[in-house]
Formats: sequence, structure tokens, C-alpha cells
Amino acid sequence: MSAKPNIAINGAGPVGALLALMLAKRGYAIDLFESRPDSRQTNIYQGKSINLALSDRGWKALNAVGIDQEIRDNAIPMYRRVMHDLAGNLTTQPYGQEGQAIWSVSRSGINEQLITLAEQQDKVRVHFSHRLTQYNFDNNTALYLNDANQQINHQTDIMFGADGAFSKVRRLMQELPKQRISYSLQYMPTSYIELSIPAGENGEHQLDKNALHIWPRKDFMLIALSNPDGSFTCTLFMDLEGPLSFSSLQDKSQVSDFFHQYFADAMGLLENPVEQFMAKAAAPLCLVHIYPWVVNDAVALIGDAAHAMVPFYGQGMNCGFEDCRVLAELVDQYEDNWPEILAAYQLERKENGDAIIELAKRNFTEMSDKAGDANFLLRKKIEAEFQRRHPELWVPLYSMVTFSPDIPYKTALSVGDIQNDIMDQIMAMPNIHECWQDDGVYRHLFALANQRLS
Amino acid sequence: MSAKPNIAINGAGPVGALLALMLAKRGYAIDLFESRPDSRQTNIYQGKSINLALSDRGWKALNAVGIDQEIRDNAIPMYRRVMHDLAGNLTTQPYGQEGQAIWSVSRSGINEQLITLAEQQDKVRVHFSHRLTQYNFDNNTALYLNDANQQINHQTDIMFGADGAFSKVRRLMQELPKQRISYSLQYMPTSYIELSIPAGENGEHQLDKNALHIWPRKDFMLIALSNPDGSFTCTLFMDLEGPLSFSSLQDKSQVSDFFHQYFADAMGLLENPVEQFMAKAAAPLCLVHIYPWVVNDAVALIGDAAHAMVPFYGQGMNCGFEDCRVLAELVDQYEDNWPEILAAYQLERKENGDAIIELAKRNFTEMSDKAGDANFLLRKKIEAEFQRRHPELWVPLYSMVTFSPDIPYKTALSVGDIQNDIMDQIMAMPNIHECWQDDGVYRHLFALANQRLS
Repeated sequence: MSAKPNIAINGAGPVGALLALMLAKRGYAIDLFESRPDSRQTNIYQGKSINLALSDRGWKALNAVGIDQEIRDNAIPMYRRVMHDLAGNLTTQPYGQEGQAIWSVSRSGINEQLITLAEQQDKVRVHFSHRLTQYNFDNNTALYLNDANQQINHQTDIMFGADGAFSKVRRLMQELPKQRISYSLQYMPTSYIELSIPAGENGEHQLDKNALHIWPRKDFMLIALSNPDGSFTCTLFMDLEGPLSFSSLQDKSQVSDFFHQYFADAMGLLENPVEQFMAKAAAPLCLVHIYPWVVNDAVALIGDAAHAMVPFYGQGMNCGFEDCRVLAELVDQYEDNWPEILAAYQLERKENGDAIIELAKRNFTEMSDKAGDANFLLRKKIEAEFQRRHPELWVPLYSMVTFSPDIPYKTALSVGDIQNDIMDQIMAMPNIHECWQDDGVYRHLFALANQRLS
Repeated sequence: MSAKPNIAINGAGPVGALLALMLAKRGYAIDLFESRPDSRQTNIYQGKSINLALSDRGWKALNAVGIDQEIRDNAIPMYRRVMHDLAGNLTTQPYGQEGQAIWSVSRSGINEQLITLAEQQDKVRVHFSHRLTQYNFDNNTALYLNDANQQINHQTDIMFGADGAFSKVRRLMQELPKQRISYSLQYMPTSYIELSIPAGENGEHQLDKNALHIWPRKDFMLIALSNPDGSFTCTLFMDLEGPLSFSSLQDKSQVSDFFHQYFADAMGLLENPVEQFMAKAAAPLCLVHIYPWVVNDAVALIGDAAHAMVPFYGQGMNCGFEDCRVLAELVDQYEDNWPEILAAYQLERKENGDAIIELAKRNFTEMSDKAGDANFLLRKKIEAEFQRRHPELWVPLYSMVTFSPDIPYKTALSVGDIQNDIMDQIMAMPNIHECWQDDGVYRHLFALANQRLS
């Protein structure tokens, strides 16, 4: 290729916007298409409003493009989980070592901020209200329909589908004959609705703002993440069908009883939870696997379009940002040779995408069931203490995923399974709840870890 | 519903044709649509030409509609596997007890026979060269395009998608918003091409016609099934990519060397295998999972459209025929109440579809690798002997799947896993190759089986 290829990105969510910014900084001309109108002008954000937990993989990607500080200005660190039991008693569990935190950001806020940053680049053109309808894979021409119902043809060299869990680029790829595209979209039994805790009378947070709050109730749970304005965005996760589910709670008195029985200490804080529950349709959660991610050396998937996951590890956006960072590094490494860039990108990211999808699926149980359990909390304490003693030998799974961007997800998954075996043995030691601080426990743990993990 | 609903079936393959016949015999008016022309008139059968092994689930379904004898007239019983090793030595393994067989039928033959039988019913109208392009799920109207490029609207009450692994009905279902349809299409690394062994000079079969012949070579294999005209239809299964694969064998001398090295004893029989290999594109194998199978109480999937599997258990068509038989029984049971019929059909068949997909996937290893192995053959002998002694306690997995239509696939899968554990213990007995006929072996096996399976 004599000149740098033109790049189109379908989807101006957080991942699409960051990708545009990163590639523009490397001299590429970028056309960023978004089916929705510009929420900065309409003041109506139509993307998912769920709060996001930004952690070290996300920060590393934002740092690579020099915008981490600007994002951090609007984020709130959460250093711990606070579990609320049925009686309203609180249990605290730190997320990591001293000072380590995950950061609450509003999806709309970070999305709009990233779009603004991308737009400031000369080579980025953002096209709102452009809906992709067709794609000609032979000559890389996309057909868009704009809000005036006009058809716009856009010819490009490279097209990224950054258009989320229900990606249109992906659906068009799947229709290609002879590409042998394996694909899976799996709906989870769990669905969710959003609720809210408003700020207090003086704009203050009504719960500890530096914690992620969980009301773990085994088969369902409520969580709350803080916003800078003093409010909390809450999410109720529960099965769509079943004996106790979104479907089983039909009339107002049932719903009211449900909230008072299970979330009594939150009832004074939540804003009209019963009315909200009645008014809202439960949104689905799903997993997406697809392979290949790249066709014709020219069209590639990134973010949720490639690997949609459930939100229980707080890694969806972090993984998408990591996709962008890795891709940008490969652009530098392969010096604009796009067939090589895209092949290396797929090779590097596909396995890691699969790994974090699996980890996120498993984490529902950790959050909703185990989080309130004494054995689980002790296990975490022993792991943290062992990490303090032997940081070279043991980083707990949660920390590998959340605070260790240099450890690939796939490594975290496989090492985590070995750690789990080892900790099962430690927890089976006699009187472990009494003797857990004894040196003998850590000598035994060292022997096991040294044998299997070093 | 005051009158019997009208039923449309998309796809006149073996499953669609049998379904039409079964429902017509229950008084329903059936429109059977097929995108291809009528192969009985064109003499060109465009469906898959691979031979099929009809076994007891298929026979039970055909018997239920009274046509088993007509089909059996064109089928050849295969009582055993015959394995061909590298040196051309043969090993025989019976498929079941004395007299039990799977039956070689040509796909085109049975398909045409079933269409003819369906057409003989007053209430069946068959529409060839009708390609489904759209479906309105609100009013159950299908849009067809015929071979004169005319658009035909067809309004129905019930629509079955019997249109195979790449079902158009399924693809249209998937596009429905808010139905939460989980779906997976997985391409296997293994692909296949068809080859042929012609009849001998006097029209005779050049190999034992009452056996399924296998050339097991671990990562790939050749199989041969007999036809009534003296020929054999052969299939070469091999990875599409990799060190030894369809892709790695590029030029004629490589292909020739490959055949002479691995299939020496077949080289005198196969019809131009090297030229055939060079000329043919390897066809893919894939697995399909989808849920739900039924939407709006009106549109349902059946056969490969609902549960495409790999051919290694010879159960694809048998499972589809069983779908038809079960559905027909539910029609009788629920007396034309179609919402109940379809709900019960889905409940009954989905788990069994998943089970046979899994069993078929596992069976590639059994056919291509273990089939030639002395331990494996001994294991099968011990199982057969134990079944003879305690038929109430032990039906080998292969026999449950193939010869026991009253045992659901899901039961076969779970019981088979327990049997596998037990046989691992038996095969670990000292000197088992010498002492396998001793009563002590069978007493031990009885104790294990009695504990876990009775």
C-alpha cells in the first residue's frame, strides 16, 4: 500500500471512539459511524446507562493515548465491596492491596468524553444518525441510511465493527458464504433492570461512595455504584423466568413485599423501586463467541461485537479498551501492514476474549452467593496475606484480572483454576477459621504454590 | 380452533417429507415447499449425496406410518464394522447382538421415495423450486420465489422449518427482536469429500457389502457404505487446515502419495481417487444448537434445522425421523391443541437433540482412532458378553443409541458416561487381556453396575 489505508469504524460507543482516537493519532483518516444521534446535543443518551467499573486494563489503554487523567477526573474510586445482608449488616472486603481500586464511571459520560477527544483529531470525522444496512465485502463499501432516510455509500479500506453485542457488521459477516464463521449468541437466564438512589438533601452520597455495594441474595442480587452528583446507579439482577423472577413478580403488592423482604435496608434510599420495577422491561444479558474475527484482511470485530460478556467481572469495556491498545501496538509493530496487523490481532485477542467471557460468567456466583459467605471471605483474606508474603508467587485471580494488565486473561483463567485447587486444600485444613494466621498455613500454601505455580 | 389448522413445511428432505406424510395421515392439509427442483424429474439430486445409516429409531418412525417395509426393500443391512489397517489387515466388530444391523440407504433414494409416498396423500401439495425469502411472523405468511422468479405469498397456521443445517426458517426466526433466541453454529475442523468404489465386472460388491468399512487413521479416516447396484459410497474425513489436511495436499503427486501411504488396499478399488480429491471442494461439518425451537406457538424447527450434528453416529436422519414420530404422538395426545403440542415437542426433543449432538461429536474419535485399537475391541467384547449375561443391567452405549429407540438419547448419554467409568475400572484389572472370559470379571462388573446403574 502506498498511502495509509482509510479506516471506517461502525459504532461510536466507548470502544469505537477510543479506537478512532488511537488510530487517528497514528495518522490514519477515520470515519466513525454511529446509528444514534449525538447525545451531547440531544441530551438523551440511548446507549446502555449502566455504570461501568474502569480498572487497570482500561487505564492502561487510556494512558497509552494520554487521556487517562481527563477520564479519572470524572471517576470515583471504589476500594472495596460492601455486602449488605438481609438484616442490613455490612461486611467489607477490599478489592486489592492498599490503594488499589476499580473506578465508577458513567457510560454516557465516558462515551461522550471519548467522542469529544476523538473529534479534536483532524483526521476523525464522526457521522451520527448513520445506520449501517449493507456491506459489500468485495469492494469494502458500506451502505448507510441517515436520519433523513438518505442512502450513503461509503467506500473504505479497513472496516471495524465496534457496534456492540448485537453488532450489525457481525451479522453481515455471518451471511457470507464459504467463510465458515462459527458463531454463538447465548442468552443468560439472568436479566436486569436499573434503579437509582438519589443524592441526599445536601447532595451527599447516602452510602459509602468509595465502595461497590452488593445485596447478595444467591439467585439474585442488587448492586449500587456511585456517581459524582451524589446519586447511585443500582442494578437488580434476577432470572427472567422461574419461581422467583421478573416474571413471577406480577402485581404491585408482590413486588413491594419482595423489596421489603430482601432489600429492607435499601428501601429508605431507593427511588420508587416498586414503581420502577413495574414500569421497566427486564433487559437481557448474553454471551457472544465468534470466529474468525477478521475476514478478507479488511473487516474486523472489536469490543462487545467480538466477545460480548456478562457484566459480573466489570471487564466488558476494559477488555474492549485492551483490544484497542493491543491493536495499536500491532499497528506500530507491523508498520501499517494491515493483513499482518489484523491476523496478529485476532490471534492475540480471540483466546483472551474467550477467557474473560468464561471468567465473567463464573463471577455471578461469586458476587451473588459467595460474597456474603464466611468461608469465602476467609479464603480471600488468606490469599491476600499470602500475596503480601509472596507477591512473586501469588496474585489472587480477581487481582490478576482487575489490577494486572500485563497478565493476559487466558493466563488469569488457567492460573486461577490452579489457585482454586490449592485454596480448596488450604480451606480443608483443620480449624482453618481459628489458625488461619499461623505460619504453618502459609508454609503449606507456599509448598503447594511453589510446586504448581512457579 | 374450529377446523384443523393448515400446515406448511419448508424443506422436502427426508425429514420434511416424512413429517408431511405423518401429519397428512392425521387429516391435516399440508403444503410442502422445496427450494430445489424435483430430482425425480431432473435426475439430478442436489441434496447431500452421502449415504445414510438407517437404524432402529428411524425404523420405528417409518413403522409408525406403515412404510418401513417399502424403505427396507432398498436398504442393505450392515451387521458389523470392518476396519482396514495400514497393511490391509481386516478386523471385524459386530454392531450389536446377533441379527442387529444398521442399514445403508442412499439419501436421494429414500428422499425421493418419501416424497412419492407423501404425494400419494390427498392432502399433501408439494411445491418444488420454491425458495423461502421472507416470513411475516405476525400473520404467518411466507414469501416464496419460484423458478420463474415470481413472488408467491403463502399464509399458513403452522410452519415447520425442516430445511436443514443452514435452515432459512431458523435464520428468519433469529432476526426476531425480543424473542431471546440463543443460537450456536460451530464449524468443525474436520471436512469431507465423497469418493466411490464402483461395482465389479459382474455387478458384484468388491468388499463385504454387509459391513461398514472404515480405514481409521486417527486424525482422518475413510469409510465406505454399500449401495444396491454393487457400488460403495465412500467418504474421506480430514481436517481442512493443518500439517496433514485438505489444504496441505496441494499437488497431484502429494495426493497420490497420501492415498498410497494410507489407503493402499483401497487403491485398486476406488474410482480415480486422486483426480476426485483434486477436483472436489471439501464440504464442512457443523453443529447447530438453538433455543427455543418454537416461536409464537406457530413456527417450529425440526430435524437438522433444530439440531445439526456431525455424521459420526449415523443418527442425523434417525433423530429427525424420531422428531417426527414424537410430534405425531403428541398430536394424538393433545388432540390438535397446537400450542400444547409444540410446547411438549420442544420440551421432549430439545434435550435429546443436545445429547445426540454431543454423542456424535465424541464418536469421531471412536471411529477414527479407537476403532482399530486392541483395548477398545476387548472392551466392546466384554460389554457384549456382560450384556448377554445381564441384559436388564447393561446395554452398551452404541446399542442404546442405535438399537434401543425406547431409550432417550439423553439417557443414553448419561448412562454411557457411567458405563465408561465402570469399564475403565474393568480394563484396569490385572491381565485383563488374558482373563477377560473369567467369571470373576463379570462378578466384579456386576457389582459395579448393580451399584451405579440399577
